[in-house]
Amino acid sequence: MPTKTRNDQDTATKSKSKSRNRKRSREPKADDVASNAPTVAQIDEATGSLDTLPPLPEGGLRIVPLGGLGEIGRNMAMFEYDGRLLAVDCGVLFPEEDQPGVDLILPDWSAYEDRLDDIEAIVLTHGHEDHIGGLPYLLRERRDIPIIGSRFTNALVDAKLREHRIKPQLHNVSEGERVTFGPFELEFFAVNHSIPDAMAVAIRTPAGIVLHTGDFKMDQIPLDGRITDLAGFAQLGFEGIDLLMSDSTNAEVPGFVPSESKIGPVIESVIRDAKQRVIVASFASHVHRIQQVIDAAAKNDRKVAFVGRSMVRNMGVASDLGYLDIPPGVLVSLDDAARMPASKVVLISTGSQGEPLSALARMAGGSHRQITLEEGDTVLLASSMVPGNETAVFKVVNALAKIGANVVHKDNAFVHVSGHAAAGELLYLLNTTKPSNVMPVHGEWRHLRAQAALARQTGVPEESIVLTSDGDVVDLVDGQARIVGHVDCGMVYVDGNAVGDVGEDALKERRILGEEGFISATVVVATSSRMIVRPAAIHARGFADNPQIAEQVAPLVDDEVKRQLEDGVTDTHRLAQAVRRVVGKWVADTHRRRPMILPSVIDV
Amino acid sequence: MPTKTRNDQDTATKSKSKSRNRKRSREPKADDVASNAPTVAQIDEATGSLDTLPPLPEGGLRIVPLGGLGEIGRNMAMFEYDGRLLAVDCGVLFPEEDQPGVDLILPDWSAYEDRLDDIEAIVLTHGHEDHIGGLPYLLRERRDIPIIGSRFTNALVDAKLREHRIKPQLHNVSEGERVTFGPFELEFFAVNHSIPDAMAVAIRTPAGIVLHTGDFKMDQIPLDGRITDLAGFAQLGFEGIDLLMSDSTNAEVPGFVPSESKIGPVIESVIRDAKQRVIVASFASHVHRIQQVIDAAAKNDRKVAFVGRSMVRNMGVASDLGYLDIPPGVLVSLDDAARMPASKVVLISTGSQGEPLSALARMAGGSHRQITLEEGDTVLLASSMVPGNETAVFKVVNALAKIGANVVHKDNAFVHVSGHAAAGELLYLLNTTKPSNVMPVHGEWRHLRAQAALARQTGVPEESIVLTSDGDVVDLVDGQARIVGHVDCGMVYVDGNAVGDVGEDALKERRILGEEGFISATVVVATSSRMIVRPAAIHARGFADNPQIAEQVAPLVDDEVKRQLEDGVTDTHRLAQAVRRVVGKWVADTHRRRPMILPSVIDV
Repeated sequence: MPTKTRNDQDTATKSKSKSRNRKRSREPKADDVASNAPTVAQIDEATGSLDTLPPLPEGGLRIVPLGGLGEIGRNMAMFEYDGRLLAVDCGVLFPEEDQPGVDLILPDWSAYEDRLDDIEAIVLTHGHEDHIGGLPYLLRERRDIPIIGSRFTNALVDAKLREHRIKPQLHNVSEGERVTFGPFELEFFAVNHSIPDAMAVAIRTPAGIVLHTGDFKMDQIPLDGRITDLAGFAQLGFEGIDLLMSDSTNAEVPGFVPSESKIGPVIESVIRDAKQRVIVASFASHVHRIQQVIDAAAKNDRKVAFVGRSMVRNMGVASDLGYLDIPPGVLVSLDDAARMPASKVVLISTGSQGEPLSALARMAGGSHRQITLEEGDTVLLASSMVPGNETAVFKVVNALAKIGANVVHKDNAFVHVSGHAAAGELLYLLNTTKPSNVMPVHGEWRHLRAQAALARQTGVPEESIVLTSDGDVVDLVDGQARIVGHVDCGMVYVDGNAVGDVGEDALKERRILGEEGFISATVVVATSSRMIVRPAAIHARGFADNPQIAEQVAPLVDDEVKRQLEDGVTDTHRLAQAVRRVVGKWVADTHRRRPMILPSVIDV
Repeated sequence: MPTKTRNDQDTATKSKSKSRNRKRSREPKADDVASNAPTVAQIDEATGSLDTLPPLPEGGLRIVPLGGLGEIGRNMAMFEYDGRLLAVDCGVLFPEEDQPGVDLILPDWSAYEDRLDDIEAIVLTHGHEDHIGGLPYLLRERRDIPIIGSRFTNALVDAKLREHRIKPQLHNVSEGERVTFGPFELEFFAVNHSIPDAMAVAIRTPAGIVLHTGDFKMDQIPLDGRITDLAGFAQLGFEGIDLLMSDSTNAEVPGFVPSESKIGPVIESVIRDAKQRVIVASFASHVHRIQQVIDAAAKNDRKVAFVGRSMVRNMGVASDLGYLDIPPGVLVSLDDAARMPASKVVLISTGSQGEPLSALARMAGGSHRQITLEEGDTVLLASSMVPGNETAVFKVVNALAKIGANVVHKDNAFVHVSGHAAAGELLYLLNTTKPSNVMPVHGEWRHLRAQAALARQTGVPEESIVLTSDGDVVDLVDGQARIVGHVDCGMVYVDGNAVGDVGEDALKERRILGEEGFISATVVVATSSRMIVRPAAIHARGFADNPQIAEQVAPLVDDEVKRQLEDGVTDTHRLAQAVRRVVGKWVADTHRRRPMILPSVIDV
């Protein structure tokens, strides 16, 4: 919304970064966070780049979140022991409307730019974009960083990096496995999430044991029977977990997330009752959701076709590796599907978030090359609405309703469950692991606060609950975790093929231009003879349709320039300022608006 | 989201309007709507301005929605009988993110511009902005149109119009009253909504009886005891309702809306448990919600102060007229409240939708002049989140969580109920009124379709369910309602103090500028001597922070212009095109972006 953007202009702070053409904009008052948090009195003592930080005491472990705290996305945490580094996840954040034109936002690892060679490995908890999407950009800077993940996670990473022409050093690991990189001894645990093969990781160093849950929930009857390894966590708990870093996404939500398996019957009934074409949109990585759609289709003897690049790619990977089971003869190409009777097919498509260029949006808009929807067709959105996408999703839903399609979505049927543990499950984890310190991760502030409250309720002492935001530096020393400082950690914007050259300055200009447009006025003068050589040329964009501006403004500008020249003003910069004043006053008086004004006075 | 915007660029259609500097952008494929709807085969025969429409048969009633169908907002319907007009409501629509910089969107009454004198009156169903916000702009065109509304509605209208320096012709009416304007005999019925004194209106003409519900729900135990007059509707039903125009906002929502009175105890417990300051944000017109906050405050002997211009204004009106009951001594000024102990005050504020300039947002951002929030303060959002506002609202919630405030909102407590009847209530209305024809109103397409399905379930014949979007022309003739045509009905944008001069062209330019910024290149040449007088001056905005563009692009531009001049090209337009090509190619190659490019070649 316009007003929102204006606000963000006001709060936008200039980037302080100098390094390697990467822009970092410190989030406004990022530090206040800490000074408001009860546990972090020390933060004001040391803030700035790594070198200004208090040295990490011998035998201590340092943890710095480089993304994902205070936002949902671009998850990355850097661990340091004895001069060596370990990264957990490297994801992307998708821009909000006050970040116009930005394609992606990366974690800010610039504090470690000169130490990339110290990284022993990157551990990936699972294959979602907000955990792996930043890899192509990090590997650009150092290609041979070992990547450790589960089979499915690494398969998705491999496919993604191939598109970026990068051949990564992948190390597959499975739950129960232990591997050691430098001083970091890693143990992996199965967790259940909205993508197969997700894992939690325990990081052992002489400083103690850290358990990082990754994204998880505790579906007790998951489709693949692979439950979150609470028993394993308990065992680790007996050993003594010094720090628990736990997924906070649903910490505000009371109770428990229903089992994914409860959705299958609903999907099946939708497909069974449909008389015509059925299109199911869901997340392209939600293999178990798609599995249930495929099973329901087969049961009602309909063929299945995948629609949308990422859906086709990921489901290919999933079935090749045996994570997705497609009964023989069920899968057909989209072309074949388009030729078959509508009542005999289920299309499984991308676009569940209302992405305007997705297959579903194009079908809804009647612009899809192969598929033309008709009144009575059924569209099932077996997905959530990611916050911020509601308007986009309902735009598609309304277009479908216009056509007369029967649209089933999470607001009118039980066709989605979250992938993140709710408060009830988080309490189970806290009570089973009995951590000495808790650091809520993966969430906005409201989520982190809620996780902190749960920890408090399970008896974790206030001073051992570490509330942080991106860039806060947490040291685990002698079994006590505390914030000891802060490193610059800003938004790193990817726009086109450039990383970091778009920063807050460009975004602020975009917001103004996008809200108000601009008016330019160019005058050619000969200061030597104090004459106007070419009268004002006025151009306006984004200001009004067919504006009558030129006729109205040009004379005012020429008069002013003439007057200034006659007054002996020959500095083109001062003349330009005068032009700006004239145009600005005119537009304020006549339109009550504040477009960007671009005066230019050229002396020949 | 950027991509969304891009898409809207693609679909944006040039405005066809010529009239009086008002821009109308026909919604893309607006007509397909009709041709997709089952009941409206006739629409293709006659589309366009009123004159091209089939004449309204003698004794027939014509109804044209000028806003509010296919969107939630800018509600306005025009009724015509025997050459005379009656308008119901005149609201505004708030812009979405693909309408940047727009302040408001008005109903499009331009089809009636030459017939404003035929308007007998405007009937207002209630005082919400999406029903009265357009009045200042309509009355600009004809000041003396009689306005008919309830006492509270008219009081709000009067306050609003005074700010626009307009003295309206207000006629107060109450439920049960009958008034006649020209051929239109009006009867009013009490309805229950999220604002006091809302009414439904029955419009009697020789063509039959139309019942327009306005916005309503059927709380059976409302705070003011003023229930929706179902009995009166039943009586009208026995007389015979030829057309029911019914609020569709919640037609998708199964069941019944809980009573507003169920919220009071929750609000009271929040205030009772709070140790420090309590701030309640809600809609500035939701008198009954505010009443419950005041009662709860008084009960826990806290004083109350109103914060935010519209809150102060509306609650003043409400208590003056006796719709709001403030116990003596409870109300204090904000200054006094700021001086009192935090545990002794409740602030009732605007900003429940995350409006960044609102009192609440400023408190959350620590920039409010009088109020500084502290850890442990309580903030209660006793409101819904209007679709599209979620991100803004959670931005404020997160800022509050950062401070350590305890934030209570509809996702974690029962502190809001909708003001619109859910499916269960709509079925009661349909079965009680037994209308011969039904026209779903007040909704996006998904809502209108849902209302149509409910009508079908209660036995309304398919051909008597009239699914329309803005500008469709519905004739009620011999007891049958059908769509007979369509008039241009576009978005009328208010930006600054101008109505309609911002249209799709300007918005499209804003979207490009807002996404990509621009690069301008100005060269001064002397075509006579085929020389460059002043080499290229390059300016970029919204493109990158401190771009090195000038150094890189200027030489390319100069070379190209030089080459063209040597090739004998002297047409400055052709030269400018060449400059555009050079700059465009450079930015595509180096950045993979498509900013707006503004070449200008000046001949001296």
